[in-house]
Amino acid sequence: MSLTVVGSIAFDAVSTPFGSREKMLGGSAVHFSLASSFFTDVRVVGPVGDDFGDDEYGVLHGRNVITDDIERVPNGETFFWRGHYEYDLNTAHTDDTRLNVFGDFRPKLSDASRDCDVLFLANIQPDLQREVREQCGNAKFVALDSMNLWIETARDSLLKTIEQVDCVLLNDAEIRQLTRKPNLVQAAREIRALGPKVVVAKQGEYGAALLTDEGFFGLPAFPLETVLDPTGAGDSFAGGFVGCIAAHGGEDLSHETLRRAMAYGTAIASYNVEEFGTERVRRLTRKEIVARVGELAQITQFADAPLALRG
Amino acid sequence: MSLTVVGSIAFDAVSTPFGSREKMLGGSAVHFSLASSFFTDVRVVGPVGDDFGDDEYGVLHGRNVITDDIERVPNGETFFWRGHYEYDLNTAHTDDTRLNVFGDFRPKLSDASRDCDVLFLANIQPDLQREVREQCGNAKFVALDSMNLWIETARDSLLKTIEQVDCVLLNDAEIRQLTRKPNLVQAAREIRALGPKVVVAKQGEYGAALLTDEGFFGLPAFPLETVLDPTGAGDSFAGGFVGCIAAHGGEDLSHETLRRAMAYGTAIASYNVEEFGTERVRRLTRKEIVARVGELAQITQFADAPLALRG
Repeated sequence: MSLTVVGSIAFDAVSTPFGSREKMLGGSAVHFSLASSFFTDVRVVGPVGDDFGDDEYGVLHGRNVITDDIERVPNGETFFWRGHYEYDLNTAHTDDTRLNVFGDFRPKLSDASRDCDVLFLANIQPDLQREVREQCGNAKFVALDSMNLWIETARDSLLKTIEQVDCVLLNDAEIRQLTRKPNLVQAAREIRALGPKVVVAKQGEYGAALLTDEGFFGLPAFPLETVLDPTGAGDSFAGGFVGCIAAHGGEDLSHETLRRAMAYGTAIASYNVEEFGTERVRRLTRKEIVARVGELAQITQFADAPLALRG
Repeated sequence: MSLTVVGSIAFDAVSTPFGSREKMLGGSAVHFSLASSFFTDVRVVGPVGDDFGDDEYGVLHGRNVITDDIERVPNGETFFWRGHYEYDLNTAHTDDTRLNVFGDFRPKLSDASRDCDVLFLANIQPDLQREVREQCGNAKFVALDSMNLWIETARDSLLKTIEQVDCVLLNDAEIRQLTRKPNLVQAAREIRALGPKVVVAKQGEYGAALLTDEGFFGLPAFPLETVLDPTGAGDSFAGGFVGCIAAHGGEDLSHETLRRAMAYGTAIASYNVEEFGTERVRRLTRKEIVARVGELAQITQFADAPLALRG
């Protein structure tokens, strides 16, 4: 079972009320691949510049992520994002974006990457997502993420790409924006009518919801007393979610498997935000993940015992 | 087991994208008492004017709510609220508030109301909440709600009142505002340090969270395709939650009981928003409540089965 992820590889400068970093490893494909590496072989596809060095490769190799398809652009600079969070850590404020080598990125997949069983199209321009998707004809399960920018500027292309995937993972606000439907149940059904069998609404500190024809599943975020940096939480969630589906063979979309995938995604995302960037997930252990999934089960169950109500 | 609720009794004029009502029965004490009436004897304390007639009493009596302590002010008019919701039903926009008889309200409790086992102090001025609380010396369980207005204008009084109750139910934004702590886990602990053993964070469409010394419990809202009017959802939740605790004797604050109470509150609140004002809950049946609690259990469980992760 092999998983390919295409997306951004970045340096992030992040400031939160609890600290800051001037240049740390980030990007959707990085966070996704570290999280999914606990479940299967992961190949990461994305561009970097000369400034991307051994330390950065080392983080990915430390989790056995296959970096052969990282395209190193000579004389280029890696995608750079600078942002900050207020005390309310839910909203990222962008202070600077330098696309650098990411601006001219055209994904080039090796045979091994193309031959993946599971494909994750992280948040990149939807035309490029579709190009990649068409190259990976053997993929049994394809999921995508996107963002408000593409919903606003490339909506038709995004809708065409969505038709060709099995799963859409978006923030709940993006799902509403995309479908122009304020009701999440209706909005998710509209997305499923385009093709995808699975819709996941990421809800930040409130958790995530799974919406399929089989029904609804809601999971709160793991409650944390210390959140240092939410950057990458959504991609870590996606990595755990899609990775778990890959670990189940990529074709089992039963609610039992999808719900378990939601729990693994939630668990890894919760570790991600405990420290800056990839600092926590790069040294995460499988034992810690399993423990947190167990805690998630514990904090969401209640006994549906009979109670005599008054008529 | 008897439950007393003190709060507003109102006429609401509400407009949502799905319809409107010019003058419908509302108010925190009304929504609360209808919801809690499924669990125990409920006495409602609050003021009304001459315009509060047989139809309105009829709704409460239809659910066996005891209305002896509704104070009818001669030549007075009942509290009136006019508001509207946009497509995003999460935010109520107030267009008009006429306190009328509610402006001079001083709660007068009969012996029977004072002698309650369980007391709910709905959202009224915190000095008045404390006056009532002090009159109900036998209450085994006392819970309160409040709002941003009192946090801004009567914070010290509200904190004094909170010291004297067992449970605080607030929106999560209000919990942050009250404690000036953005982290919910920390904020809830700070509230518990004042006295209350139980903190419930209402999270609107995202559900609710329970925070006690024993731990955390999170429950998503029941997913609905049709939400006509969210007015009263929070008070319906509180009625189900506090009512369920009353049905368990009022002194059992184990997580098992509190979690079940969260489920009953969530179930009744979900019915409340399906139609305008009290229109749905007034004809709700115990069978429907039990069915929805069962569905809530179903949509929140996942199998914590072992999965072989990569180290």
